[in-house]
Amino acid sequence: MTKILIVNPNTTTSMTETIGAAARVVAAAGTEISAVTSAMGPVSIEGYYDEAFAVPGLIQALMNARDADAGIIACFDDTGLDAARTAAPFPVVGICEAALITAGQIAKRIAIVTTLPRSIVPLEELVRRYGFAERVQVTACDVAVLDLEKPGSGAEAKLEAEIARALEKGAEAIVLGCAGMADLAQKLSRKFGVPVVDGVAAAVKQAEALAGLKLTTSRRGSYASPGVKNYTGILQPFAPKASG
Amino acid sequence: MTKILIVNPNTTTSMTETIGAAARVVAAAGTEISAVTSAMGPVSIEGYYDEAFAVPGLIQALMNARDADAGIIACFDDTGLDAARTAAPFPVVGICEAALITAGQIAKRIAIVTTLPRSIVPLEELVRRYGFAERVQVTACDVAVLDLEKPGSGAEAKLEAEIARALEKGAEAIVLGCAGMADLAQKLSRKFGVPVVDGVAAAVKQAEALAGLKLTTSRRGSYASPGVKNYTGILQPFAPKASG
Amino acid sequence: MTKILIVNPNTTTSMTETIGAAARVVAAAGTEISAVTSAMGPVSIEGYYDEAFAVPGLIQALMNARDADAGIIACFDDTGLDAARTAAPFPVVGICEAALITAGQIAKRIAIVTTLPRSIVPLEELVRRYGFAERVQVTACDVAVLDLEKPGSGAEAKLEAEIARALEKGAEAIVLGCAGMADLAQKLSRKFGVPVVDGVAAAVKQAEALAGLKLTTSRRGSYASPGVKNYTGILQPFAPKASG
Amino acid sequence: MTKILIVNPNTTTSMTETIGAAARVVAAAGTEISAVTSAMGPVSIEGYYDEAFAVPGLIQALMNARDADAGIIACFDDTGLDAARTAAPFPVVGICEAALITAGQIAKRIAIVTTLPRSIVPLEELVRRYGFAERVQVTACDVAVLDLEKPGSGAEAKLEAEIARALEKGAEAIVLGCAGMADLAQKLSRKFGVPVVDGVAAAVKQAEALAGLKLTTSRRGSYASPGVKNYTGILQPFAPKASG
Amino acid sequence: MTKILIVNPNTTTSMTETIGAAARVVAAAGTEISAVTSAMGPVSIEGYYDEAFAVPGLIQALMNARDADAGIIACFDDTGLDAARTAAPFPVVGICEAALITAGQIAKRIAIVTTLPRSIVPLEELVRRYGFAERVQVTACDVAVLDLEKPGSGAEAKLEAEIARALEKGAEAIVLGCAGMADLAQKLSRKFGVPVVDGVAAAVKQAEALAGLKLTTSRRGSYASPGVKNYTGILQPFAPKASG
Amino acid sequence: MTKILIVNPNTTTSMTETIGAAARVVAAAGTEISAVTSAMGPVSIEGYYDEAFAVPGLIQALMNARDADAGIIACFDDTGLDAARTAAPFPVVGICEAALITAGQIAKRIAIVTTLPRSIVPLEELVRRYGFAERVQVTACDVAVLDLEKPGSGAEAKLEAEIARALEKGAEAIVLGCAGMADLAQKLSRKFGVPVVDGVAAAVKQAEALAGLKLTTSRRGSYASPGVKNYTGILQPFAPKASG
Repeated sequence: MTKILIVNPNTTTSMTETIGAAARVVAAAGTEISAVTSAMGPVSIEGYYDEAFAVPGLIQALMNARDADAGIIACFDDTGLDAARTAAPFPVVGICEAALITAGQIAKRIAIVTTLPRSIVPLEELVRRYGFAERVQVTACDVAVLDLEKPGSGAEAKLEAEIARALEKGAEAIVLGCAGMADLAQKLSRKFGVPVVDGVAAAVKQAEALAGLKLTTSRRGSYASPGVKNYTGILQPFAPKASG
Repeated sequence: MTKILIVNPNTTTSMTETIGAAARVVAAAGTEISAVTSAMGPVSIEGYYDEAFAVPGLIQALMNARDADAGIIACFDDTGLDAARTAAPFPVVGICEAALITAGQIAKRIAIVTTLPRSIVPLEELVRRYGFAERVQVTACDVAVLDLEKPGSGAEAKLEAEIARALEKGAEAIVLGCAGMADLAQKLSRKFGVPVVDGVAAAVKQAEALAGLKLTTSRRGSYASPGVKNYTGILQPFAPKASG
Repeated sequence: MTKILIVNPNTTTSMTETIGAAARVVAAAGTEISAVTSAMGPVSIEGYYDEAFAVPGLIQALMNARDADAGIIACFDDTGLDAARTAAPFPVVGICEAALITAGQIAKRIAIVTTLPRSIVPLEELVRRYGFAERVQVTACDVAVLDLEKPGSGAEAKLEAEIARALEKGAEAIVLGCAGMADLAQKLSRKFGVPVVDGVAAAVKQAEALAGLKLTTSRRGSYASPGVKNYTGILQPFAPKASG
Repeated sequence: MTKILIVNPNTTTSMTETIGAAARVVAAAGTEISAVTSAMGPVSIEGYYDEAFAVPGLIQALMNARDADAGIIACFDDTGLDAARTAAPFPVVGICEAALITAGQIAKRIAIVTTLPRSIVPLEELVRRYGFAERVQVTACDVAVLDLEKPGSGAEAKLEAEIARALEKGAEAIVLGCAGMADLAQKLSRKFGVPVVDGVAAAVKQAEALAGLKLTTSRRGSYASPGVKNYTGILQPFAPKASG
Repeated sequence: MTKILIVNPNTTTSMTETIGAAARVVAAAGTEISAVTSAMGPVSIEGYYDEAFAVPGLIQALMNARDADAGIIACFDDTGLDAARTAAPFPVVGICEAALITAGQIAKRIAIVTTLPRSIVPLEELVRRYGFAERVQVTACDVAVLDLEKPGSGAEAKLEAEIARALEKGAEAIVLGCAGMADLAQKLSRKFGVPVVDGVAAAVKQAEALAGLKLTTSRRGSYASPGVKNYTGILQPFAPKASG
Repeated sequence: MTKILIVNPNTTTSMTETIGAAARVVAAAGTEISAVTSAMGPVSIEGYYDEAFAVPGLIQALMNARDADAGIIACFDDTGLDAARTAAPFPVVGICEAALITAGQIAKRIAIVTTLPRSIVPLEELVRRYGFAERVQVTACDVAVLDLEKPGSGAEAKLEAEIARALEKGAEAIVLGCAGMADLAQKLSRKFGVPVVDGVAAAVKQAEALAGLKLTTSRRGSYASPGVKNYTGILQPFAPKASG
């Protein structure tokens, strides 16, 4: 039995349900998915400010489930990923990184279609850090995250139009740039006849892979455990482990 | 009168005093320096985990002083810089970025000498984002941040030895990679006969420059103001401004 | 049941056995591993020349097993990977790419330790193409591929010495740079206290991931199926599919 | 009192006046601006050839004012900047570099709008050297440098149209790509509602910053003082200092 | 007398004739051109699969002519170039690399116009490896390789239209991206008034250059001669030399 | 008959003789070499300052010989190359660029061994611009340019020691980083058993190649002819051609 903890780092529980359902569709037979909502932070994560304020809540949620075999941060900005890797006793997977390395094995040129234009530059910075700068175009369909869930918002039509544009410009595969799109991948793949990768599903398989290989975060160098020190004020949710 | 707010994003007040003093030494005649300590977060910032938990406190501190003409984040990781720029009504300067762009105008090859080895990779990531990957080497003198303030810790000797090594390897200027070294720049510059740049001092001049040019953060694209939305739980210190 | 075909593109069957065994150790419950040896090509792959002459045999072997759910090329040079993806009706995983994307989720700085120095530059070219140039060092332990299997060759001691050097220079995780090292990963990981990633094992999990996600190679652009055309002479082992 | 020497490296004195006026608007209380015209060289600098022939004159002009606290080269190609830094006893600021590092602190994506298309590639080379390749687009409004000063040339309308196009393509801030546009920044900023950075103004603040920090060009490595040697023929305007 | 062997790695002899003729037009007085067709492989090379299956035949053809002073691989993908350099006792030139380094000395921005869109990504990968990523755009005129030879296919008109588009987007010189276009360079250059570089002609001059300088492939490191080992099965066309 | 003009941009005539002799050794039967010394500028070019002051003289020298078929700038910094290409009616070759593109066809990893350490950074900047950053190491043997000609200076021994160090670090070919070393290439190649490339010889072959291909500098974009304008003062050696 492999226990995978998925944290939705925004506080919208309906989105957590979408995420959990998408994860369970692809989970292997022996995998148990637990999807939780962060207890503090913004209702949706759109831009640098929301990212920053989502991190403490998501790390708290990861730490509450210390018996997981792997964790997933279900926000496409991979917010807090490095901090989470430093702190969690299990490997932690980001859905943007998981989607890119998955898509990168089945296509050369990839388009990420995200929600709002303000997320393009933060995602481009991620893409560069993950080594995909020469292969990935980031584009936005101009839909607010929470509108993805609203019938009548026209969100899906806008997403489809943006995918069509990306394919015309040479994309060979599509990556859905928001956890809230997790339920649309298969339908869109059929419609456009190209691989469409959802980060949540991709992350489940990467989490299973790391757990199956019994690999966890290195404690040498950048991901060394946090030092034993005072964290003043309201933000000291748990005792960090001593550096090993 | 130009009001510059410097936030020390760790909670160690003695370090705030060192920072404030270093800032006042270089401030122009009409500049008023206000150095404040974050009310929540770690006593020192060493690695990704500490960075993440320092951000809400530092942004809170920036927002408490809405009448500043410019803000400075006095941690060499420039933690929270993008989030702060998104939220603050005045320009915000990071001491790593300020130090690099200053040193970059007086030398081609630069060495950043920081504290612990675990900070090397995070700083290399910053260096790359700021466009200095081909010109900067990051190295560590293996001194914990708080030991910089302890007489008898041998911190200064270790720092000097690391600077000597960096110069031997071709560095043409030195950047001090921790706000806690702010008082040492001039002494080290005299000792080694090369420019030694302290980020706090450099940031004061960049803050004065932006204020003097009446420039502030662009609200188009990546730094658009945070949306009006709910921030659930304990972490909603203030109402973000509506996006312009 | 997921059928994974692993092709050893050199003609040494004892190495195919090592590879198959390593794959079965990490395969999930429902995965069936089939490890085959290429019928033509060099006994070991060391350098550009051997790579080129190994490709037709390995593609022939992949095409012989058209009912696989995923294929793996078990040579760390990922030789023929792009051609194989173009031709095979199932996704194809390279062990170098799989090892890097796995290691990249648990460490920032990675060292690949390969066999002969002549393979360093070809691997550095792969590393760059996969987007890991800034995070990976390639080094060689100066052991010929087939000596890995010879008791008394001192191969393992040389490998360990090279790993020790790489860790000293800042590596946070080790990737074993030859399929012939597949049986050593766990032992070395225990010895050095860091993650040691074997490409064969990593590739099995990536193959399971792609099969589990029902994703296969995109047929748009670079990986479009080969055209229907004449392949003159001895080298026309099968009819390529018409481009879709 | 900080003495800043601005050299206009083309020989058009009316442009020197525009530059000097723009500099004085932003200069701090204790700063004295001296704007001089190069005695030899082209009337405007458009392309590699003009750049090369402007350098000796501008270095001569810098060396004539050895008591300055900082120097500025007021041509957006930053022509001769490295040579000037090697020779001048005070720090030297380039207006392109100054504009980029200023804009880079208030926006992620920047557009440089220059004069003639032939300057696009030289500026792109500068942008890359300064580390801004991933953040900056260079574009031209197709106006000759000297037409910027001619009423009725339609220059300003063309410049505005090009700025509008750049914003549409995602620019978050504008950098004016010619010293001859120095008087337009504030007006354009108001018109378009985004930061518009003029290099001359930005350079004045960087020069004040370096002077205020008592930093000058490193003499180690690339910027070592010129050797004591013969400069044959007409081009030996002064005795270079011995290397320190 | 300098003997240059040109191998057409596809099996279409009429294309070999075009290539040979284009080579003889530019060959120096003392140069003897020998153009041969590979005995095995595809009739045209379009994409990764065709590339892989063309390599053994082309290396066989190179090795059959061991008394050449230099060899040329006349396929714009430079397929098998590294393997050929490892094996051949004379220097080997690729027509893509030769065209780029030639065009790069007479223009800053270059457009490669190739045949089918599926070749764009493979060529972009070559362009990056050769260090031209920042200067070269790759585009396709959507003509199959063999259609270049068919009167009435409209190939030439499509090629011209694509060249016109590339010039509009800023290209300063054109590189013809297929050996089958070798006869068109001069005509197109006259028509468009810009340098048009054909890879075959460029490669002849690079081959003459290397032969004239008495330079041949280094045997240190990446291009060390193939080891003495078994090449099982049908693919062992000759005895590789012992590593020096 | 192909007329190649080589300009030595420093004023040391004995070095011009060395350069001319090295050029004639490799020139083809129909090539006429003319080697001239610049009439103004420094006696040797070491660093940015010398480079800048050498340019007007070398361009003057190029323009004095308008009937050449190709020109060569015989200083390894390729100083003034872009300006010369803009102005000269024939193609212009730089010896650094020529050496790198030649060595790049026979080796993957290259070391440039230059004279003084102060030239390392300027050459690294060239290497990056030419796209060789990932393949080239620049190193200095700490010999002043003019000492290369002085018997008893120990220059040759220092050069050999530096070459040995570079080979140990993985270089597969050596490029001599100064025109004054032009006579040493063959001897060093024999001694070390690796290709040693001299820029002057390499440039002669590139000049012959461009002339043989009847290619000259593009006049679109960056290398457009200089505009018709006033060049004030002593520096107007000739009337630039009107832009075409």
